[in-house]
Amino acid sequence: MGFFTIEWRDGKVLMIDQRRLPVEEIYNEYTSYEEVAEAIEVMVIRGAPAIGVAAAMGVALAAREGAAKDSEADFKGTMETAYARLLRTRPTAVNLFWAIDRMKKLEKSMNGASPREIAEAMEKESILVLKEDVEINRKMGFKGAEYIDDGDVVLTHCNAGALATGGYGTALGVIRAAVEQGKKIQVVADETRPFLQGARLTVWELMKDDIPVTLITDNMAGHLMKMGRINKVVTGADRVAHNGDAANKIGTYSVAVLANRHEVPFFIAAPLSTVDRDTPTGDQIPIEERTPTEITHVLGTRIVPEGTKVFHPAFDVTPAELIKALFTEAGVAEPPSVKNIDALFQKAGR
Amino acid sequence: MGFFTIEWRDGKVLMIDQRRLPVEEIYNEYTSYEEVAEAIEVMVIRGAPAIGVAAAMGVALAAREGAAKDSEADFKGTMETAYARLLRTRPTAVNLFWAIDRMKKLEKSMNGASPREIAEAMEKESILVLKEDVEINRKMGFKGAEYIDDGDVVLTHCNAGALATGGYGTALGVIRAAVEQGKKIQVVADETRPFLQGARLTVWELMKDDIPVTLITDNMAGHLMKMGRINKVVTGADRVAHNGDAANKIGTYSVAVLANRHEVPFFIAAPLSTVDRDTPTGDQIPIEERTPTEITHVLGTRIVPEGTKVFHPAFDVTPAELIKALFTEAGVAEPPSVKNIDALFQKAGR
Repeated sequence: MGFFTIEWRDGKVLMIDQRRLPVEEIYNEYTSYEEVAEAIEVMVIRGAPAIGVAAAMGVALAAREGAAKDSEADFKGTMETAYARLLRTRPTAVNLFWAIDRMKKLEKSMNGASPREIAEAMEKESILVLKEDVEINRKMGFKGAEYIDDGDVVLTHCNAGALATGGYGTALGVIRAAVEQGKKIQVVADETRPFLQGARLTVWELMKDDIPVTLITDNMAGHLMKMGRINKVVTGADRVAHNGDAANKIGTYSVAVLANRHEVPFFIAAPLSTVDRDTPTGDQIPIEERTPTEITHVLGTRIVPEGTKVFHPAFDVTPAELIKALFTEAGVAEPPSVKNIDALFQKAGR
Repeated sequence: MGFFTIEWRDGKVLMIDQRRLPVEEIYNEYTSYEEVAEAIEVMVIRGAPAIGVAAAMGVALAAREGAAKDSEADFKGTMETAYARLLRTRPTAVNLFWAIDRMKKLEKSMNGASPREIAEAMEKESILVLKEDVEINRKMGFKGAEYIDDGDVVLTHCNAGALATGGYGTALGVIRAAVEQGKKIQVVADETRPFLQGARLTVWELMKDDIPVTLITDNMAGHLMKMGRINKVVTGADRVAHNGDAANKIGTYSVAVLANRHEVPFFIAAPLSTVDRDTPTGDQIPIEERTPTEITHVLGTRIVPEGTKVFHPAFDVTPAELIKALFTEAGVAEPPSVKNIDALFQKAGR
């Protein structure tokens, strides 16, 4: 595709700086877990699966830092601090917790090994998390693509593409798989204020793949549905609760309500690592509030009067009743429910 | 309030340049109908009632231009060209057509008078259109305020304020009247992409009046309603059809659907000059499509990849069934319907 979201290279983590896209394609280099934590916080990298990969690689960097210290106690201390630091970065995307938990378990399983051995294992594991994520997305994409018809116009919100994952994408993975199947698909991308992931990232990566895409502002989706110009909606998710309620980028809930009114099927594509069976319903999902300046300024330009009061929830929760089906790598939960979600985990042997 | 939207002064028309708010408060001066037509097109002035006032003053400028010419035939030619030019500026806002029609009727009624006399009468008439608009807004505001309760949090979309009218505002007129009645009201303002009338204009004029306002992006409204944080919605309109369907700034329809789902009363405030009984339903209202650059650029900064394809309908239509009541200067149509709208026109003696 001519770009990558995140890579491990020679003991360093490289990420394309998503704050600067599409104006500049710049890759930042990170050598410490603290730098990675900050990159997650300021959204150099975003999207639940990509955050998971970044967190895993952040832990691997911490292990290198810890292994370079004098004692095993120092190593353990570094790891504990790094886990806690990375866990604090973003509260909603559950893949963060999932990835750190995976790395913690690896450390525990290597009890008795030297810090250097653990650091090497963690490096390999974090690269595996990335590789698996791409494979998972392809699998999920082809399962979801069965629900997409030739000629469909598919609306998506935010960016759930290659840039939000290790590669291929979740919602855009479904689009890519449908295109690979030979279906002629058009995408309508919500611009997704305030961070403009739709306008800046989704449009950019679909244009790179020559997939037809039309940009709209978020408030046009209802009008387009009313005109009969949208056939399907597919988005990603930052956390799916056990009952199928799904937290995703702010605005997703509104799109789901509109789709429901117009009988446009609304789908979510998310790997099992995004499904959190420890969160019973959407009501228990913590909603991150972000800085007002992401709303009051657009690419550095202030658009409001000084002193403007702002409310900035970064996510909302779409209730399962509005979601026709949840696409995962293990299969489809249609509709998403405790029973159907448990069945997918069972199928995946978890 | 420390500012004005539009004024006639010494044979010139002054308008605050709404493209530059809130960064700069600049008043532009116009001496020809062509300049006024362009100002309407590029949205120096916007909002259906304000467009009506501007069109009336544009016609009055044309009459001055025509009266300065050699013959009565030249005057008539100038007027015909001016009517046609001004009518072409914006297709959705019906106040434009209403105001030009009013001026045409005045010209016709003065058959036999000299161009100079007609020009003087037109100047007075256009100033009257402005004055009446403010009075109408106050009347409408107090009628609508009966539906607003002490402590309400009221969501509004776009700017239907003093800046969208001769003064006082339609939707914000309702807010202002409720505040004048001593009610404690908080406003939540949708930023209203792409032109950001909410972020730039509504927030600005409410802050000037010390009315508490919180800014959100358009896609947050559904989330706030789900959290029970919005009690009422009031917007303006660009054209209300005979059956009560209402065209307003793009995104209004989505807000109405969301309000409906959450049983939040959705109101429209619009003078009778915005109600077009010649348009039977919303399906017949022409929807203006505007330039892609209003979406691809924010205050001059490009936010999307070069070559991005964009769809830009500037308005949408909210069906009457989603509108609890229509506030006008003649009373309230609750719900808006042919019968209830006809009753208001009858009451107003039209």
